[in-house]
Amino acid sequence: MTSPAKLENTEHLLDRATEVLAKDSLIEIRNLVRSLYPAEAAHILESLEPEQRAKLWAVVPPSVIGEILVEVNVEVGSSLLKITDRKDLIAATESMGADGMVDLLHVLPEPLLSQVMESIGVHNRNRIEKALSYDEHTVGGLMSDDVLTIRADVTLDVVTRYLRLRGNMPTATDSLIVVDRKDQFQGLLPINQLLTHDPHTKVESIMDARSSGIPYNMSSRDVAGLFERRKLLSAPVLADDGKVLGRITIDDVVGLIREEANHSLMSMAGLSEEQDMFAPVFSSAKRRALWLGVNLLTAFLAASVIDLFEATIQQIVALAVLMPIVASMGGIAGSQTLTLVVRGLALRQVTTSNAMSLLFKEVSVGLLNGLVWAAVVAVVAGLWFHNPHIGLLLGVAMLINLVCAALSGVAIPVLLDKIGVDPALAGGVLLTTVTDVVGFMAFLGLATLFLL
Amino acid sequence: MTSPAKLENTEHLLDRATEVLAKDSLIEIRNLVRSLYPAEAAHILESLEPEQRAKLWAVVPPSVIGEILVEVNVEVGSSLLKITDRKDLIAATESMGADGMVDLLHVLPEPLLSQVMESIGVHNRNRIEKALSYDEHTVGGLMSDDVLTIRADVTLDVVTRYLRLRGNMPTATDSLIVVDRKDQFQGLLPINQLLTHDPHTKVESIMDARSSGIPYNMSSRDVAGLFERRKLLSAPVLADDGKVLGRITIDDVVGLIREEANHSLMSMAGLSEEQDMFAPVFSSAKRRALWLGVNLLTAFLAASVIDLFEATIQQIVALAVLMPIVASMGGIAGSQTLTLVVRGLALRQVTTSNAMSLLFKEVSVGLLNGLVWAAVVAVVAGLWFHNPHIGLLLGVAMLINLVCAALSGVAIPVLLDKIGVDPALAGGVLLTTVTDVVGFMAFLGLATLFLL
Repeated sequence: MTSPAKLENTEHLLDRATEVLAKDSLIEIRNLVRSLYPAEAAHILESLEPEQRAKLWAVVPPSVIGEILVEVNVEVGSSLLKITDRKDLIAATESMGADGMVDLLHVLPEPLLSQVMESIGVHNRNRIEKALSYDEHTVGGLMSDDVLTIRADVTLDVVTRYLRLRGNMPTATDSLIVVDRKDQFQGLLPINQLLTHDPHTKVESIMDARSSGIPYNMSSRDVAGLFERRKLLSAPVLADDGKVLGRITIDDVVGLIREEANHSLMSMAGLSEEQDMFAPVFSSAKRRALWLGVNLLTAFLAASVIDLFEATIQQIVALAVLMPIVASMGGIAGSQTLTLVVRGLALRQVTTSNAMSLLFKEVSVGLLNGLVWAAVVAVVAGLWFHNPHIGLLLGVAMLINLVCAALSGVAIPVLLDKIGVDPALAGGVLLTTVTDVVGFMAFLGLATLFLL
Repeated sequence: MTSPAKLENTEHLLDRATEVLAKDSLIEIRNLVRSLYPAEAAHILESLEPEQRAKLWAVVPPSVIGEILVEVNVEVGSSLLKITDRKDLIAATESMGADGMVDLLHVLPEPLLSQVMESIGVHNRNRIEKALSYDEHTVGGLMSDDVLTIRADVTLDVVTRYLRLRGNMPTATDSLIVVDRKDQFQGLLPINQLLTHDPHTKVESIMDARSSGIPYNMSSRDVAGLFERRKLLSAPVLADDGKVLGRITIDDVVGLIREEANHSLMSMAGLSEEQDMFAPVFSSAKRRALWLGVNLLTAFLAASVIDLFEATIQQIVALAVLMPIVASMGGIAGSQTLTLVVRGLALRQVTTSNAMSLLFKEVSVGLLNGLVWAAVVAVVAGLWFHNPHIGLLLGVAMLINLVCAALSGVAIPVLLDKIGVDPALAGGVLLTTVTDVVGFMAFLGLATLFLL
């Protein structure tokens, strides 16, 4: 008797794939692909450079093509679609459940979408068109219509016999949905209640009638928070009139949480979380060029501030040496505050109700650190250039810039969020503009006033 | 007959709490607290400033104190512990399961820990000491010892009768763990199989014997990836000899995913994800001071590079005006690459096996964008200062810096990861050092060579 293998550490999934691909043995590549879960295959495909990606994709059986396409990020998905045989793709959709098909249709570009829709039978088409009609960023767009409902007035024995007759249950079923004759949601019967109670018990006597459904139009961001904080595994989705429309399960939500967190990180560098790490050089460069261009404007703005003080710099070159210190420290301090606020806004832990307290706290922190580091730079710069006045001005300018950085670090993202602009994306550029302009202006301005 | 309320949108959880707290009505605050799940209370407590936080905490019933303490981040937890009555805390641990207690003990500081441990009965103490003996960052430290096991040679009917006798099941039980007489793991019996098969069926004939357990020493980062990619709801945890030690459930994993994603974001700004947003000004300032100090060293290093070219700047002040542009664009481009790689490393999508391809691609992107923007800045700067030579040099320096930024954006985080230093934390500072030094050196150096 052998005990089954332990779950393999996926840490080396990519390394193993690269190794197998390097050997170029078709059989080994096939075996590898067969041993993978769809999301694991997706993970590897996202991490491979285009040539190897194509090699791996070529041996993926058509039956799992659809499931993998749903898992990869948008850009990698479209790069794979380009090298997928149309017939394989249509065959793939036919072998998928309506549910997976909806996810897949969400990622198909237009000409393909119509082709696939035409190949689908009328019954399924209605079901899918209904599913596609919900906003993708709401619960309606995420939910599955594979729902198992029971009545409140039957016994557990009847329920169990019904389940045996049905022969299967939707994935991640931790409770059965109890509805009345009009399909109105009544409550939930947790599976562990079903299993631990006497078969003659009636559903209504042990069902959880206080539990509630999720409105179909709740945003996916909110539903992620809800699942996370209430430790839900699944929840029924309700129409406005209380009818059960579908259900949403934890695996959808895990994906949302990962995406949302990646979004803040990537946006702060002007990147998209749906980006292919190995996108073609030209299209990568094109996309990043925009971000660089926006930042170049900021840089030129800062340069034009310096230009105002050309005469001053000409007389005291030490100012040119020291001025980047003021701007850089402001940028660093500001980005700390900005990151804290951007994360808080994403998690809905920063709202207008606590933004003022946070502003006050951050400005105090900026003031305190400004005083400490102003003293340090004043001494260092004073000694360096044998000129205590330059040191003093550098310190004062830095203090001013750290306070401005704290102010903008809170105010900019909160305001952006209020007017519906993504603070993670636009916050950094605006903040750097402030800290650069204020930094150069304060230092060079003070120097012009007091040193000339 | 009224249909139950839909799940309330938690978007406004914090706003509602602030509102109720502002009214200062003890009854309303109590009602609010009672309506919250522990993790919801934790979410609100994290978002409140200290004064309001204390007000809310004061009305939390001792019976849920423990569960909330486990949910809040480390720093907010210790701020709450300072204002918690010791007797309440000891009472709280007594009402918790061994499982929750272990989580709580992980967050208790030493003097309290001993006090609580003394108040625990001998049986529980052994169980808890065993649980505490695992590394907190591995599956062992995460798992619950609340395990329900069955034998392979019994019928489903026996299993169901056993469950009814037991009267309850561990949370998130989607499958029962099948073991032999020596507690060795044999396979899993999915609950939906149990419910949909004939009661006379034997467990061994329908159990999933290919399914496998997780080794107790797998890192929590890897287990998160595993659950995410295989869409697991729970998994058994095994000792080296195949004995079942416990189980791990999706709700633990969701927390891990959130934490890990926050970690990259916060570390890149030199912050900790376990930080209290409303930490006292003095301690916040102290912690950030370190980060500012490290960055100040970078800034002084960059300044000393400029200082080398003081004579050059004195002759051509336009150089001082334009030099921040080179450094800033390098920093922006580099941080794009850095972010891409840091995320890739965290998700284990970048390893030594694809780092070279990524390096090649990023350098190509840098080169391409360098050429484009170098042309733009060359023209703009040339026109601005009526000096095509300055424009040309600015362009060349920027091209050099963008290529260096791409090189360092890949190389720095990969090398840091290899030597075991957190690339999210240290990567940014090192990268900025490179882009500042190279930027100033290239521009001012070229100017000294060709313009004087």
